Amino acid sequence: MAPRKQEEIFQATLELLAGRGYEGLTVEGVAERSGVDETTIYRWWPSKAVLLGTALTESRLLFFETPDTGSLRGDLVALVEQVAGLLTRPPAADVAVAALGAAAGNPELAVGVQHFFADRFSRERLIFDRAVGRGELSPDADPMLIMDLLVGAIWLRAIFRGLPLDEDFAPRVVDAVL
Amino acid sequence: MAPRKQEEIFQATLELLAGRGYEGLTVEGVAERSGVDETTIYRWWPSKAVLLGTALTESRLLFFETPDTGSLRGDLVALVEQVAGLLTRPPAADVAVAALGAAAGNPELAVGVQHFFADRFSRERLIFDRAVGRGELSPDADPMLIMDLLVGAIWLRAIFRGLPLDEDFAPRVVDAVL
Repeated sequence: MAPRKQEEIFQATLELLAGRGYEGLTVEGVAERSGVDETTIYRWWPSKAVLLGTALTESRLLFFETPDTGSLRGDLVALVEQVAGLLTRPPAADVAVAALGAAAGNPELAVGVQHFFADRFSRERLIFDRAVGRGELSPDADPMLIMDLLVGAIWLRAIFRGLPLDEDFAPRVVDAVL
Repeated sequence: MAPRKQEEIFQATLELLAGRGYEGLTVEGVAERSGVDETTIYRWWPSKAVLLGTALTESRLLFFETPDTGSLRGDLVALVEQVAGLLTRPPAADVAVAALGAAAGNPELAVGVQHFFADRFSRERLIFDRAVGRGELSPDADPMLIMDLLVGAIWLRAIFRGLPLDEDFAPRVVDAVL
């Protein structure tokens, strides 16, 4: 399958999830919206939960580049700004919230969400590896704990509390943790 | 209405949410489970979303005492341990995840979740007020940002990543932030 068409399938999946909820998401609907045959989609992704789990991790919609600004602080501020941007602007914000909501009642989809976070962490690790290499960060530091704090704070403030993120939110959370 | 009966209504509401999801939660079901007349429940809480929003904040199920150990670090470690306990053990963990999931597709319920976090923060503030009074914390510190980091990290690690919390998770997140 051509990568271009694959991305269309993933985007259709995520848009339908955000617009109609998990119950309203169907492979038939994804086929219609992406212009790809339903049986073709099933051949690659055997269930709706697998398709959605893969789309979360692979689609460009929730993708962010790993920053490389030359400093740990600069990289983390850029990363927090990217994640905060995703979580506060449609369509990515609606997709992320809908996916988390759907995963709450669906163990198969919860695994897809865990896979999403594991994939993103494997990219985020580069920031910490480079910082250790530059002598900016102790090799004993715990990169996952730092990411839990930073990304968790964005979720708490923007999604759970429903409060706006101040313009200086990113440097402030990063400085609180470093 | 007697407070004892009110708590039974709230617990029935939260248990049904965790067991059947938001769609399966009905005021009729709450009435059956709590032994309180359905019309009585409607008189106090005009809709399912309002009842659930109130139950989240008021029920003992998701309640935690504000620690008062004599030090900021001690208070925050105790607080993180309490919240981590709630988010990793049934029934509170199932209730919290189901409530967040349901709020993803329901703006009225999302307001209930925001109210829950605002209520908890009004209690958590005491920890920081006392720390400022003892000269342990600058009056310029941002208590909400500290709580976003700490509570967000628990959600990220335990719920989104689905990973176990190490025994020293609480002191480690607190030391990373203080």
